[in-house]
Amino acid sequence: MNYFSSDFKLGILGGGQLGKMLLFDTRKFDIQTYVLDPSDEAPCKIACNHFFQGDLMDFDTVYNFGKKVDVLTFEIELVNLEALEKLEAEGLKVYPSPKTLRGIQNKGRQKDFYAENNIPTAPYQRFENLEGLKSKVTSSEIVMPFVWKCTEFGYDGNGVKIVRQIADLDSLPNVECIAEEMIPFKNELAVIVCRNPSGEIKTYPVVEMEFHPEANQVEYVICPARIDDAVAEKARAIALNVSQNFNHVGLLAVEMFQTVDDEVIVNEVAPRPHNSGHYSIEASYTSQFENHLRAILDLPLGNTDSKVAGIMVNLVGAEGFSGNVVYQNIEKILAWDGVTPHIYGKKQTRPFRKMGHVTIANENMAEARRIAQEVKNTIRVISS
Amino acid sequence: MNYFSSDFKLGILGGGQLGKMLLFDTRKFDIQTYVLDPSDEAPCKIACNHFFQGDLMDFDTVYNFGKKVDVLTFEIELVNLEALEKLEAEGLKVYPSPKTLRGIQNKGRQKDFYAENNIPTAPYQRFENLEGLKSKVTSSEIVMPFVWKCTEFGYDGNGVKIVRQIADLDSLPNVECIAEEMIPFKNELAVIVCRNPSGEIKTYPVVEMEFHPEANQVEYVICPARIDDAVAEKARAIALNVSQNFNHVGLLAVEMFQTVDDEVIVNEVAPRPHNSGHYSIEASYTSQFENHLRAILDLPLGNTDSKVAGIMVNLVGAEGFSGNVVYQNIEKILAWDGVTPHIYGKKQTRPFRKMGHVTIANENMAEARRIAQEVKNTIRVISS
Repeated sequence: MNYFSSDFKLGILGGGQLGKMLLFDTRKFDIQTYVLDPSDEAPCKIACNHFFQGDLMDFDTVYNFGKKVDVLTFEIELVNLEALEKLEAEGLKVYPSPKTLRGIQNKGRQKDFYAENNIPTAPYQRFENLEGLKSKVTSSEIVMPFVWKCTEFGYDGNGVKIVRQIADLDSLPNVECIAEEMIPFKNELAVIVCRNPSGEIKTYPVVEMEFHPEANQVEYVICPARIDDAVAEKARAIALNVSQNFNHVGLLAVEMFQTVDDEVIVNEVAPRPHNSGHYSIEASYTSQFENHLRAILDLPLGNTDSKVAGIMVNLVGAEGFSGNVVYQNIEKILAWDGVTPHIYGKKQTRPFRKMGHVTIANENMAEARRIAQEVKNTIRVISS
Repeated sequence: MNYFSSDFKLGILGGGQLGKMLLFDTRKFDIQTYVLDPSDEAPCKIACNHFFQGDLMDFDTVYNFGKKVDVLTFEIELVNLEALEKLEAEGLKVYPSPKTLRGIQNKGRQKDFYAENNIPTAPYQRFENLEGLKSKVTSSEIVMPFVWKCTEFGYDGNGVKIVRQIADLDSLPNVECIAEEMIPFKNELAVIVCRNPSGEIKTYPVVEMEFHPEANQVEYVICPARIDDAVAEKARAIALNVSQNFNHVGLLAVEMFQTVDDEVIVNEVAPRPHNSGHYSIEASYTSQFENHLRAILDLPLGNTDSKVAGIMVNLVGAEGFSGNVVYQNIEKILAWDGVTPHIYGKKQTRPFRKMGHVTIANENMAEARRIAQEVKNTIRVISS
C-alpha cells in the first residue's frame, strides 16, 4: 500500500492536542487525513486535510465519517463503539480495534481483563450502581479508605475519588463503579507499548510521574524513571504482557504503581498517544506519535530509545483565570537550554484546563530536573 | 508582544518545503500564519492559517500580502525586494531585512560585500554581460578553468558552470555574471547562524557536505563535520563574522570551502532555513526552523547543540521518471534505527526534483554514516 503523497486516507476520531501532535507526523509523511471533532475550534482543525464537525458518540456521525477513509484511528476513547464495530465488520481497518477499545472503555471490564489474564492489579469489586457499593461499605465488607472509580466516561482524573468516610459516598453519582483497594505506592510509572498488525512490538522506556507532595497532582513526567533496573524491567515486562493479552494495534499506554514492596501493579491503560509519552517528541529517536502512525499503517516501528533525558511539565490553566489565554513568562523559559513549549491552540483558558506542555531535554537528568522545576515555577497560564 | 494563541499574524513568502517545516513550529507554538505562494499545490497550503496564491516577484501582490501581517519573513530569496523595502519603510517588521536580502540576492554584490568586509572568498571578477567576460578570456586576463555564475535568479546549482575551454562559453546565457577562480578544496562546509533583533547570536555546529565521487552531487550532509577542531573553529568564526557584517535577523546559512591548505573561504550565503540544517529537526536540541521563528519574533534563541550525530540524505526524483510519485522501498528504510523520512508533499516527481529528505540520527557517527549509505542505496523516488 502506498501511503505517501497518495490518495490513501487516514481518519482520526477526535481533534484535540493528541490528534494535533499526530498530524505533525502525517504532515511529515504527507499522508492525507480526515478529522472528526465536535468543536469548531479543535486544535486539529488546521493541518488535517479535511475537517468534519460532529458528535463522536453519535452512531451515524462516526459511521458516515468512517466510510470516507481507508484506515480509522482515534485520539480519545469516548467514541461510538458500535459504529466502529460495524465499520470493522464491513472491512474497514480500525486501529486500535473496537475489541481492544471495548475491553478498555469500561473500567470494570478492564479490571476483569487483568484478573482473567493474571496481570497484577489492585484488588477491586464491581458495582452496577452506588447503592450496591453503599451496602457493602455499611456492612464493612469493603473497608475504608478505598478508591472509587466510575467505570465509564471518566477522564483525566474525573470519575476517581478516595472514599475515607461514609459521608464521602453521598457526593458520588449513582453510576456503575468499582471500589479498589488502596495500595501504598512509592512511584507512579508508565510504559508505552507500540504494536503493528504484523506483530512487531516495542516498548518505550519506563517513565515516572513525580507528584506534588501536597497537591497530589502530577507535576513532572520523567524519562527514564529514576528507579532500579530490576523494577524497570518488571514494569516493561508487565506492560508487554498487557499489550500481548489485548492483542492491540497502535499505542497502548500502561500506567502502573511501584508499591512500597517494589511490586509493580497495573492501574489502567489508554489505547492511544498519552500524556506520559509527550517527552518522546524531543527525547526519543521516534516519537510516540510517529510510532502510532507507523503501527496503524503496518509500517516497521521506529527506535523507542531516548537520545537524552526528557522531562515533561503540563501547562494547565491557573486557578482564578478564565478567558483569552496568556502564557505568562514564556519568553523566560525559552531562554533555558533544551526547553520546548508545546501550545495546544486552545484560545480560552479555564482553571486546570490542559493548555499545553513543556519538554526539557538534557544529557544530564539532574540538570533536566533542575530546569523543569524552574519552568514549573516560572510559566503561568493566565488570561488577558 | 503576545504571539501564542493570539491575534498576532506571521506572514511567510513562499510555500515550499522550507515553509512547511517552519509551520511545524508555528503550529507547535500556535502562532497564526499567512502564506503566499504561486502554486495552488504548495506544500504549505495546509497547516498555515491562511493561504494566498500569487506571484512572489509581483510588487502589488507582495505588498498587499505584507499589509495583512505583523511580521513578515520569507523561505525563498526570489521575492519582490522593492515591496519589502516599502513595507519596512512603512513600519512593518521584515526579517531578514530587505537590506540583508539586497546584499545577497545578487551574487556579484554578495562577492563585493565579502571583499569590502575582509571575509575570505575566492578571487572573482564581475561582468555586466557575457561579452565582457568573453573578451577577458580571449585576452587571457582570465585563465581557464574558472567558475562562471550568473548573479541573479540562480537556484540549487542552476546558474553555475565550470568553464574549461572557450567553447563552453557559447552555451552560457548573456546575463550579468561573475568569473570565480577555482580553488581546490577538501571539503564543502556550512554553518548556520541565528540572530535575533536584540542581538543574541548562536551558531550551529559545522556540517560537512559529502559529495558523490563521480557525479559531483551532494549526497550527505553530516553533522558534526568530520574535520579538525581548528578548522571547525575557523569556520564558525568566519560564519559569525559574515553574520555580524550583514547584521541579519533570522537564520543565515554560510556555505564554505575547506581548501587543501586548511584555509576556510566563503562560497555563498542564504538568509533562511537551509538544506544543510535539516538534520537539526532530529539531531539538535532546537531545530533551525524553531530558531528561525524564535529569532524573527525576538524571542530567546534555543540551544543549537546536537543531541546525537545527524546525517541527511536528499530525496530527489530519479532519472527517467515523471508523474505521480512513489517512494520505492520506503518501508525498508523505516525499519532501520533512527531513520526518519520527510516527504515534502509534491504529488508529481521529475528527474532531480527535491521531493523530500531522510534524516539518520545515531549516537555513533560511523554507524549513522553506514545507515545513511544503506538509505541512499535503497530508497528511490520513482513514478507509478
